[in-house]
Amino acid sequence: MTGWTATMIDADAEPVYAAIEAGGTKFVCALAHADGTLLERARFSTRGPQDTLAEARAFFDAAATRHGKPRALGIASFGPLELDHAAARYGRLLRTPKPGWHDADLLAPFATLDIPIALDTDVNAAALAEAHWGAGRDRDGGPLDSVAYVTVGTGIGGGAVLHGRTLRGLLHPELGHIHPRRHPHDHGFAGICPHHGDCLEGLANGPAIVARLGHELGDAAPTHPIWDIEADYLGQLCAQLALTLSPRRIVLGGGVMQHERLFAPIRARTQHWLSGYLARREVEAGIDDYIVPPGLGDRSGILGALRLAMAAEAQAKGSRLP
Amino acid sequence: MTGWTATMIDADAEPVYAAIEAGGTKFVCALAHADGTLLERARFSTRGPQDTLAEARAFFDAAATRHGKPRALGIASFGPLELDHAAARYGRLLRTPKPGWHDADLLAPFATLDIPIALDTDVNAAALAEAHWGAGRDRDGGPLDSVAYVTVGTGIGGGAVLHGRTLRGLLHPELGHIHPRRHPHDHGFAGICPHHGDCLEGLANGPAIVARLGHELGDAAPTHPIWDIEADYLGQLCAQLALTLSPRRIVLGGGVMQHERLFAPIRARTQHWLSGYLARREVEAGIDDYIVPPGLGDRSGILGALRLAMAAEAQAKGSRLP
Repeated sequence: MTGWTATMIDADAEPVYAAIEAGGTKFVCALAHADGTLLERARFSTRGPQDTLAEARAFFDAAATRHGKPRALGIASFGPLELDHAAARYGRLLRTPKPGWHDADLLAPFATLDIPIALDTDVNAAALAEAHWGAGRDRDGGPLDSVAYVTVGTGIGGGAVLHGRTLRGLLHPELGHIHPRRHPHDHGFAGICPHHGDCLEGLANGPAIVARLGHELGDAAPTHPIWDIEADYLGQLCAQLALTLSPRRIVLGGGVMQHERLFAPIRARTQHWLSGYLARREVEAGIDDYIVPPGLGDRSGILGALRLAMAAEAQAKGSRLP
Repeated sequence: MTGWTATMIDADAEPVYAAIEAGGTKFVCALAHADGTLLERARFSTRGPQDTLAEARAFFDAAATRHGKPRALGIASFGPLELDHAAARYGRLLRTPKPGWHDADLLAPFATLDIPIALDTDVNAAALAEAHWGAGRDRDGGPLDSVAYVTVGTGIGGGAVLHGRTLRGLLHPELGHIHPRRHPHDHGFAGICPHHGDCLEGLANGPAIVARLGHELGDAAPTHPIWDIEADYLGQLCAQLALTLSPRRIVLGGGVMQHERLFAPIRARTQHWLSGYLARREVEAGIDDYIVPPGLGDRSGILGALRLAMAAEAQAKGSRLP
C-alpha cells in the first residue's frame, strides 16, 4: 500500500478532511471541507474487517488524487470501541457480536496515511455534528455545550457531547442497555436482547417491534397499542437522560424515529416520568424543542466523522477546535 | 455588614480559602488551605435562609480576623440549584420543598466580600473532592477524569466529574429520581417520594427503609430481605450510571452507606443488571475497586467546596485549576 499520490492540487486550496462512518451494515467514506461540503462520497456494504477497511483505504487513495491529501481522518464507528489512548487495544472493536469484527483494528489500515486520526462512536460523533451543524445548536446558531444523540433502529445507541466534548469514561455510553420499567400492556413479550432480554434495546429496537407484530411498525394501525408502548420506553430513556447526563437537548434519530408521530407521545411520556420534578421550561412548556429529530437527517454520522477529523488536526497542532 | 477586617497577617502566608457545605439539615463553614488543611470550622443547624446565611457570613468575618482574607469562596449546596451563569436566577435554589428556601439567593450575602465565588451542588462538589483527594484517584494518586458520587441518606442524590469538570447541563444530575425496576419482594410498598412515589429515592432512601420496617436499617436482622432489596435498587443505579455517564469509579456515601455490608450485594446486583455487557475489567473482576466508599468520610462536601473556591480563584485569574 502506498502513501498519498502526489497531485497538481493547489497547496493553498481549502483544507480537505477524510471521514468514515463505519456502520454494522454499511460504510460511508467521504472527503469534505471544514464547512461540511462533501467533495466525494462512497457507500458500500460492511463485510469482514479486512475487505471493508481495504475498500475504505482504496477510496481515500483514489479520491486524494482528485482533491488533495486530507489533513486528518475521523472515524465514527459502531461499537463497543476501545477509546482509551493509554490502552494496548486502542482503536479496536471490543466484544461485538458482528461476525469477524471482534478485536478488529480500525486504525492500522490508515496508519500509512501519516495524518492525525480520531476515533469515536458513531453516536458520539453524531451528537458532535448535530451540536455544530444540526439540531443541537442554540438560538444564535452556536453549539449547545451538552447534547445527547440517540439512534433507534436495528439497535439502540446513544452518545453525547458534554462540556463541548464527546462523552468517554470507563467506556462510552451504552444507552440501549438500560432497563426501563415494563409497560403494563407489554408483559407478554420477553424482549430480544441476547445479553439482557428485556433491556431497552431488547424491547424497543426495530427487530423487537417486528418480533411482536410480525411486521414493521409503519404497517401498524394508528390505534395499535405498540405506538404507546414504544413511546413509553423511549420516554423513560429521555427522562433518565435528563436526570443523569442533564443534556440541553436530546436528538432522536434512526430508522424507527422516521415515524414522526412517535415524537409527541415520547415527549408526553418523558414528562410523565419526570412528573414536574425538573424545574426547567425546556422539559415543560418547551419540550417540543427539547426532544427533537436530527437536523442533519442521515448525514449526522459522516459529518460527525468530519468533526472528529477537524478535532484530530487541531489537537495535533496543539490547539483546540472552537 | 462590613468587608474583611484588616489584620496583621503576613501577606506572603499560604493562601486561605472559604468553603461552605450547605446542607438541608446542617451547614458547615470552613477556612482552609489549598492542601485541604482546615484552619477553622463551624457547624450549625439549617434554619431559614436569612438567619442561616447570616451566620455563615458572620463566621467568615470573624475567622478572617484570625487567618486572613480568603482568596475565594466555594459553596457546595443542596439543590436543585440554578447554576447557569447566564440565567437571571443564577445562584438561587429552585423548587425545593425545604420551607423558606425556594428561590433563596445563596450568593447575595457574600457579595460584599468582593472575592470570586463558585457554586455547585453538594454532590458534584463531593465528586470533585473525592477525585482529587479521596477514593476517585488513580493508581498514581492523580484524579480520575470521570468519577460519580452518590449519597444515600435522607435523600438520594448524585453528582459527577467528567472530563475533569463537574457535570452541568440543562440542570445538574438528579439521580435520585430515576425509576428502577421494582424488586419482586417489594411490590407491596408504594414508595415515599412526593413527586414520583416509587422512584429510586422513594424506594431506597433512609426514610423509605424506616417506612417499611418501622425502624432503622441497622436494626434489621442480617437475613432480612430489606438488605437484598436495598442492594438491588442501588445496583440498578450503578448499572445505569455505567451505561450512561460511564464513570471510571462510583463512590457511594451518605448515612445508609455507613452499613458497609451493603457494598458486596450492590456490586453483585450491578453485575447482574449489566450481565457482562460492558467488556471492562473494572465492572467484572475489578468491581471491588469500581464501587467504593468515600475516601474522605463525611468531609467530601466541605473539601469539595474548597476545590470550588480554588477553581473560582483560578478562573478569576484566567487560568484553570490543574
